[in-house]
Formats: sequence, structure tokens, C-alpha cells
Amino acid sequence: MIKRPYLLYLGSGDDPLSVKTAQGIMTWRPDFVVGETTNNGSTITVGAKRMTISEGAKRGAKTLVLGYANGGGVIESSHLEDIVQALELGMDVASGMHHALQDHKQVEQAALRNNRTLHNVRQTDQIFKVGTGEKRSGNRVLAVGTDCSVGKMFTTLAMHKDMVARGVKADFRATGQTGIFIAGTGVPVDAVIADFISGSVEALSPSREDGGWDIIEGQGSLFHPAYAGVSLGLLHGAQPDHLVMCHQPHREHMRNLPGRDVPDIEECMEANLWAAKTVNPNVKLSGIALNTRHMDEDSAKRICMELEEKFDLPCQDPMRHGVERIVDRVLFLKHQSYSVSLADE
Amino acid sequence: MIKRPYLLYLGSGDDPLSVKTAQGIMTWRPDFVVGETTNNGSTITVGAKRMTISEGAKRGAKTLVLGYANGGGVIESSHLEDIVQALELGMDVASGMHHALQDHKQVEQAALRNNRTLHNVRQTDQIFKVGTGEKRSGNRVLAVGTDCSVGKMFTTLAMHKDMVARGVKADFRATGQTGIFIAGTGVPVDAVIADFISGSVEALSPSREDGGWDIIEGQGSLFHPAYAGVSLGLLHGAQPDHLVMCHQPHREHMRNLPGRDVPDIEECMEANLWAAKTVNPNVKLSGIALNTRHMDEDSAKRICMELEEKFDLPCQDPMRHGVERIVDRVLFLKHQSYSVSLADE
Repeated sequence: MIKRPYLLYLGSGDDPLSVKTAQGIMTWRPDFVVGETTNNGSTITVGAKRMTISEGAKRGAKTLVLGYANGGGVIESSHLEDIVQALELGMDVASGMHHALQDHKQVEQAALRNNRTLHNVRQTDQIFKVGTGEKRSGNRVLAVGTDCSVGKMFTTLAMHKDMVARGVKADFRATGQTGIFIAGTGVPVDAVIADFISGSVEALSPSREDGGWDIIEGQGSLFHPAYAGVSLGLLHGAQPDHLVMCHQPHREHMRNLPGRDVPDIEECMEANLWAAKTVNPNVKLSGIALNTRHMDEDSAKRICMELEEKFDLPCQDPMRHGVERIVDRVLFLKHQSYSVSLADE
Repeated sequence: MIKRPYLLYLGSGDDPLSVKTAQGIMTWRPDFVVGETTNNGSTITVGAKRMTISEGAKRGAKTLVLGYANGGGVIESSHLEDIVQALELGMDVASGMHHALQDHKQVEQAALRNNRTLHNVRQTDQIFKVGTGEKRSGNRVLAVGTDCSVGKMFTTLAMHKDMVARGVKADFRATGQTGIFIAGTGVPVDAVIADFISGSVEALSPSREDGGWDIIEGQGSLFHPAYAGVSLGLLHGAQPDHLVMCHQPHREHMRNLPGRDVPDIEECMEANLWAAKTVNPNVKLSGIALNTRHMDEDSAKRICMELEEKFDLPCQDPMRHGVERIVDRVLFLKHQSYSVSLADE
């Protein structure tokens, strides 16, 4: 568990994409954030209150979150000084970068000296068991996708928020770094040892008896030649009752793979349903979440309506239109199966 | 690369299954083995020449291979003494166990003192890239299976041996611990970080221009809820031209999962072909390798003939009947596509 509130550290760059993680935290959990700080006079912002590290400490920040990515994955020495300052002021530090914070000697020593915790959310030293696929109680929704970065995290966070607003008991289960900062906990599924992918997700979303829902963040795509193993292991470990298919229409090629077409959404639905049946024969596809940010409002509405009609499923852009109708469908299906099982008794 | 010849260390148990790794090495590469040794007077054997560790050293053993598994994964202290002795006598040590040899302080110190290498073949510190799925040159065969432990390693080793005996240029590409000892190198695919599964297999079986073949050891099953992620990533990374489906008829349940049926072989064929098409649209299923060790000779022949007729594919038990006809089919298909491409030009 990463201690809150966070002070978001945005580094010294000027590319808004480089602070995606900080932006995600600010969008979804502004209540976790006491402020933001940059290095070397950078004016980059995610809209949090601007402050120095020592002001952050005075305002009660418990963790300095490195909410930026940098090309080489190597932390600049001026950033290391900032990190050490935060540790000296009593904060923990959390990083979403590939390299461990401990790999930097002065950071490791400052953490030891001040008895602070270093969180590397892209790494995990948790010991997992191999998956079993055994039926667990509880209700699970998993976002799957035609590709990486099509909106799976956004969709599950929006569904979680919508359910909680309705008074439905629900937890967001994070499987990636930004999601983990937002939830305060989770499993970086792409960073576990391959043998334990599904087992790690079984641990993330254990049996629950309270009638509540686990809304599980998906990763990658069964059709992405780099990450499909993660996607399939995650799908098996999640044991979903409901899938939501996430897709960005008109994407030119699969993420980072020029020349490779994004799979047909229908084939992708079938593949995910087929694979999920290994662990839950009753799995249902319950909605389509489109990422239409490159389309105008009319085209976005039109394509949602087209897919809705074609597949007889609610189809929405979570960012533009919310996820209410997808959540309706998920909850209704659940009620339906309740009444069926009652009638059977 | 693990230095040869090996002295096989069989531990102190009496269960033949516990020395499966040593047995695999002895079956496939007796020429790599200078002898075997046990601890505490155990009489377990894999049929190699019996000797003490110091006799092994005198006969030129370069690596002590821990060729046994033990329940807890913890090495007994009397075994640690034997390991240290081997290091003092100038051998490297290689282990297929989950725990690193370095985790035992006296082993680590003995290795440093004698400037010896410790190989943990269930672990890898190799830095891999994420996979790309880009078309590579060369010819690739991958064994896939309905379950774990159905004969994928045996099948690929037999195919490799058969090809080499025919004068066909071929390499066995090991993906598991026993295979790595047999090949002297390889990638323990289930031990890499999940993000790099397919990338690690792309590295294991890179582009080759010499017209030769890579015969790639498979792992797990797309239908095994613990390991399917590994199997899919491996399949994508292998970019196979030919699949060989491995199956053990009449298995009561999936490995380690009582109550879970083994998938139908036909469904499993379709699933693997579907998944492999993501990286190679021309992939073909070219044979069925059955593990019939629980059947009598007549029943074994009958089921092979039945499946052969049903699927119009060569079907053999590699242990009983060899793999010649499967290799014939693989090579013939290759010739066929050669002539087609010549006719096109």
C-alpha cells in the first residue's frame, strides 16, 4: 500500500505525454494529491497545486510519486537530489520506472537512513502461486482490447466510479503502474515472472463473499505479438463474468508496430470469449467502450450506434458519453442470472 | 553456455521421478555426461558411470549439474557441502531449482573464491526486448500441447535428432530447464518477466539465413489456466511454420488440476493455429505426437491410425514409433512451398 497523500513529481520535461501517470492520478484521484512539483524550472503541469518539495512535506505529503516517464529510464542526477530531499523530509518515494529506486546508491542510503519505503510499482517482489483456474465467488468485470492503449484503464475506472455512485459495492483492481498509483495498490502484471501471471491476478482478485464487484484493469491484447501472453494470463486469472471490449476505431496500426493492422473487433470479441470460457463457461460480453478522441462528435455517435446495433450491446465512449449503459447491462445481466437461479430452486 | 562434460548430481532421494532432469540429459546427451554421483549412499541411478565428485573432477567434469528436484526447493546442507566440494575442485555448478545457488552463502563464497560460474537455469538475468512479431527468415517447428508434460520436449528432441541424421541443418531450441541442460543453452521461458515472453523466444530463435531449421520446445497449453500466458507468448515468439500437436490420450485431468478435463485435441489444434496466424499466416499443423505410455501396443497403434485418418496428419508416439513420418511431412511441406514459389517466379 502506497501511503497518501501524494506529491506528484513531474520531472524537468515539457512533453505532456511524459506525465501521463501523474495526469491519470490527477484525473481520477485528485483527493490523493496534495500538489505537484517540477525540477529545473519546468512549467509542465497536471493542474495540481504548485509547490516545492519542502512545502509538500509541510502540507502532509506522505509519498513523492515520480509521475513522469523519461526516454532512457535513467533518472537524472538533479532528480536524484530531489528524491533524496523528499526522503530526508520523511516522505516515501514511489516510481513507475523500469529501474529500481534502490539501484541509485544515494537514494537507497537516504531511505535506510530515514527508515522510508521505496515503491517500485513496475516491479514486484511479492511471492505468487501459480494459477489454478478454480471457481471463485464474487462478480468480476474485465476490460479487454483490440490493442494496447485503447482505454482499458479509463473504462474500468469509469465503471468503478459509476457503480460506487449507484451504491454498488465495487473495487477497482489495478494491473498497471498508473492504475496502481490510483488504487494505492495492485499487481504490475507485466512485471511478474511468466509462470505466475494468472496466479498473480487470482491473488489480486480473490474470492469475495460480500456480493460486491471487482472491476479489473486489462492489459494489452490477445492479438499483440509482444504482450498477448500477459493478456491471456490476465484473462485466465481474472476469471471474468463480464468482458468489456475496448477499441479505438480507425487506428492505423497496432501500438508500436507500423504495418500491423489492428484486429477486427468481432474476431477479438470471439477470441476473448473463447479464452475466458476456459475459466468461466458463463462469461458474457457486456459492452463496447470506444476511444473516439480522433473523431468529431457526430462520427463518434454514429459509430457507437452502428456497433450497438451490429452486436446488440451498449457501446459508449467512456470519456465522451460515460459508461452508464454498459454498467446497466452488467448489473442487469447479474440480476437476470439471479432470478434464473432463484426460479431453478 | 554451460560447460561440458557434466557430472550429474542425483541427490539423496529414491524416487526416479525426482531425477527426471538427469534422466533427460542421459537419454538425449549421454555424450555430455562423464558420470553420476549421489549423496548419503543413495542408490538412485540414471545409468551413468558411478563416481565420487573428486573422481568426476579427475575425469574432466566441467559442471556439476543438480539433476534432481526436491519438494521444498530448499537444498539440504549435506548437498551444499557436495556443491562446495565441486567448486573447490574447479567445476562450475548448474541448478534447475527455483532458488538461486547464490542464495546459499557458502556456495556463493566458494564460487567467488574459485572463480567459478553458478548457472541457475530456472532464472535468467538476460535482458530481453519486447517482441515485435516481425517476419524472420528461417524455418521453425514448435511443439504445442493439450496439457503440460505430454511429451513436447521429447518430440522436439526426437525431431531434431531425426533431421540431423538425415543431414538437415537443424537446432533444438530449449525453453525449459531439462532442455537447456541438453542443449547447453536456451531460455527458461516461464522464468522471464511477463512483458518479455515473446521477445525472449524471438531472441532464442533469431532470423537464420542458412536454410536450416529451429526445432523449438513448447511449454504448457493454451488451455492450462496456470500457464496459458507462457504458451501463447512462446507461440507468438516462435513464429512457427509448423506446429506439432502433442497429446496424451485418456489423461484423467489436466496436470495438477483434478476435476479439469483435458481439452479436445481438435479444439486445441484450432486454437493454436488461430493464435499462430497472428505472427505467421502460413503456419501449418504438420503432425500429432501421442504419449501412449499407459496403453498397450495394439491400442497405441489403433489410436494413432484413428487420429491419422481423422486429421489427415502423421500421428506417432515418438517414444514407441519415432517421428520419421512427422519429419517427412514437415520437410515435404517445405519442399512443396519451395516448388510453388519457384513456379510463381
